[in-house]
Amino acid sequence: MALTLGIVGGGQLARMMIAPAVELGVDVRVLAEEPGMAAALAATATGDYRDLETVRAFARGVDVLTFDHEHVPQEVLRALVADGVRVHPGPDALQFAQDKLLMRARLAGLGMPQPEWARVTDAAGLQSFLDEHGGRAVVKTPRGGYDGKGVRVVADPEEVADWFDGGELLAEELVDFTRELAQQVARRPSGQLVAYPVVETVQRDGVCAEVIAPAPHGSTRLTEVAASIGTAIAEGLGVTGMLAVELFQTTDDRLLVNELAMRPHNSGHWGQDGAVTGQFEQHVRAVLDLPLGDPAPRQPWSVMVNILGGPADGTLESRFPAVLEAHPAVKVHTYGKAPRPGRKVGHVNAVGDDLDAVVYEARAAAAFFAD
Amino acid sequence: MALTLGIVGGGQLARMMIAPAVELGVDVRVLAEEPGMAAALAATATGDYRDLETVRAFARGVDVLTFDHEHVPQEVLRALVADGVRVHPGPDALQFAQDKLLMRARLAGLGMPQPEWARVTDAAGLQSFLDEHGGRAVVKTPRGGYDGKGVRVVADPEEVADWFDGGELLAEELVDFTRELAQQVARRPSGQLVAYPVVETVQRDGVCAEVIAPAPHGSTRLTEVAASIGTAIAEGLGVTGMLAVELFQTTDDRLLVNELAMRPHNSGHWGQDGAVTGQFEQHVRAVLDLPLGDPAPRQPWSVMVNILGGPADGTLESRFPAVLEAHPAVKVHTYGKAPRPGRKVGHVNAVGDDLDAVVYEARAAAAFFAD
Ligand SMILES: Nc1ncnc2c1ncn2[C@@H]1O[C@H](COP(=O)(O)OP(=O)(O)OP(=O)(O)O)[C@@H](O)[C@H]1O
Ligand SMILES: Nc1ncnc2c1ncn2[C@@H]1O[C@H](COP(=O)(O)OP(=O)(O)OP(=O)(O)O)[C@@H](O)[C@H]1O
Ligand SMILES: [Mg+2]
Ligand SMILES: [Mg+2]
Repeated sequence: MALTLGIVGGGQLARMMIAPAVELGVDVRVLAEEPGMAAALAATATGDYRDLETVRAFARGVDVLTFDHEHVPQEVLRALVADGVRVHPGPDALQFAQDKLLMRARLAGLGMPQPEWARVTDAAGLQSFLDEHGGRAVVKTPRGGYDGKGVRVVADPEEVADWFDGGELLAEELVDFTRELAQQVARRPSGQLVAYPVVETVQRDGVCAEVIAPAPHGSTRLTEVAASIGTAIAEGLGVTGMLAVELFQTTDDRLLVNELAMRPHNSGHWGQDGAVTGQFEQHVRAVLDLPLGDPAPRQPWSVMVNILGGPADGTLESRFPAVLEAHPAVKVHTYGKAPRPGRKVGHVNAVGDDLDAVVYEARAAAAFFAD
Repeated sequence: MALTLGIVGGGQLARMMIAPAVELGVDVRVLAEEPGMAAALAATATGDYRDLETVRAFARGVDVLTFDHEHVPQEVLRALVADGVRVHPGPDALQFAQDKLLMRARLAGLGMPQPEWARVTDAAGLQSFLDEHGGRAVVKTPRGGYDGKGVRVVADPEEVADWFDGGELLAEELVDFTRELAQQVARRPSGQLVAYPVVETVQRDGVCAEVIAPAPHGSTRLTEVAASIGTAIAEGLGVTGMLAVELFQTTDDRLLVNELAMRPHNSGHWGQDGAVTGQFEQHVRAVLDLPLGDPAPRQPWSVMVNILGGPADGTLESRFPAVLEAHPAVKVHTYGKAPRPGRKVGHVNAVGDDLDAVVYEARAAAAFFAD
């Protein structure tokens, strides 16, 4: 009777869809990789998402299938669509979040601003790209990268010699950016689309560390250009659900597309506590083709700080008494994952009127979970 | 590793603890009365909460035991405490929410303002109470009442003849009230206490229909007196977790205590979207003896309207497209319960700066779920 949403993948993004789905009244089922994952509470199946029969069995009896990650193979996705399963985002869109080379070519076709780039298949090809770009480049494996794994800044093809075995690579100019931004939009299968305010994201060691929403010093023009890029990509690629467009703001004040995520994204966690409709609720609504919620901020400023790694000497819970006592207005989110260096195990959100105070509050709270 | 909270009872109050518990990183387990209840997602056991062995088995392996309702018998609660289970609220406090006669006597001992009342055991006793109170009284069964069942306004003892078989009854003066209010406080076992702003509750046919937070036209004095009543009761009775004190504001501007609930309460649903820390998160924190969250409103006004009954001709979900399209900023909460006349099956929350607009918004959204 209730609408049923199936999520492939049991990580924290699936976990964080549980709360808004339960509140709205949507049944959530998760196909988890193994027992005890972040989204274990809603796990009704455990298995390999690369195996068609596993996913097919899971998809039976759900109204819509969506994802915690972008790793489900195209063949599996296309077979499900052929079965008549409502898959959102669908394989035609998702391929551009799965393969950065495909993405670059498609975004070029849409006329989107992006770094100069080339497909390189050997050292000679990379050397000529380097020669044309001041001797430095960012080289990326087209598939399977995350949290900066699969991204290297190189001056010599030797530095990615190990990667050429895997076939083609993406070479990009090393962008001289003043900061990184992210633009999120939500889009329904029936076409309705809403844009969130563009946010500033701060990466450390290739991993998202902090997000400020909306991006400080964001002119009307910046906000509009970012939203129009997000909208053009969502519509051009036929994205359904949440889309995040990672952007560079360059020293000469252009916006260039870095990459795409077609699912809830770390840059949108602030909205759980800072937006009228957070990205997890919005994703659930969008993929079920329900009318979208208001993406407006509830407060002038929201700041999200990731908990990376967590305490070496204990559990996240061991820090709850201290952090909750010191910061009664901060919202602590943890993912049920064991602490491990560099691992995303939770985040905190702070909201308020004064940016400096909100930044301080979020950082101070997150610091309680540090080593 | 994660903290584990066991909830006895699988209704909507247990259901609504799931979302904040998941977000904070607390494992929730529910002992449900039967399969398919509102809190089924977190149900790890099904059984009779009046049976000690059932509850005892469920309590094994949880850090703290709490409740969706107040119906677990004292003998069961006391046996669990003797076992060493951390039960919050504990039996000593909970008895005053289980029995309205016990409550009246105890509140009198605490000097709390309340309606005139008497324990009556037969028609003659009730007749003399009637004679002393202008010929009318409110008669209540001390135990097991909810949503106005177990409450009758009478002018003649005959009207409750069927109830005298059950033993003693509570007779109360028929209070001449201008409105009903509710004061919530949260209290930890270690003593920390926070008070929510007093709210106005509107009952229809003995059932909560709407809540406005904070109570309109609430003077500083009203707010302080209500908070001090809530605080005195929580401390006096040793309540742990959420306490709701239902109050009458009389025509001569006194506050009188109607009754107590020691759990999240319908009068606090607004806080899910309208408070920095909603009552469900607060209850989880309080019973686990974690520092309490900020109970302040996020916006000047919040209005909650219950969905009572639901569409006769279909499911709640059939109304989602229309309501979500018309009200993108309203938050819809449904409980996974089948529509049935008068049944609480969900609620909507609206928040904002302008009370009239917020009231309109919440009522208009809830109306989409009407028959
Ligand atoms: N062309 C570039 N010029 C400069 N810096 C870059 C470039 N491409 C990537 N980076 C830096 O490396 C980071 C990671 O790159 P990218 O987002 O492509 O990798 P990823 O592993 O898919 O990341 P994640 O999954 O964490 O978003 C970027 O956030 C940015 O800081
Ligand atoms: N003494 C009284 N004088 C006037 N009205 C009363 C009195 N007692 C109760 N009422 C009315 O009846 C309603 C229900 O009473 P009460 O709260 O005691 O019953 P209940 O069934 O336990 O309610 P619920 O579980 O819905 O809160 C009150 O909200 C109030 O409107
Ligand atoms: Mg990236
Ligand atoms: Mg009542």
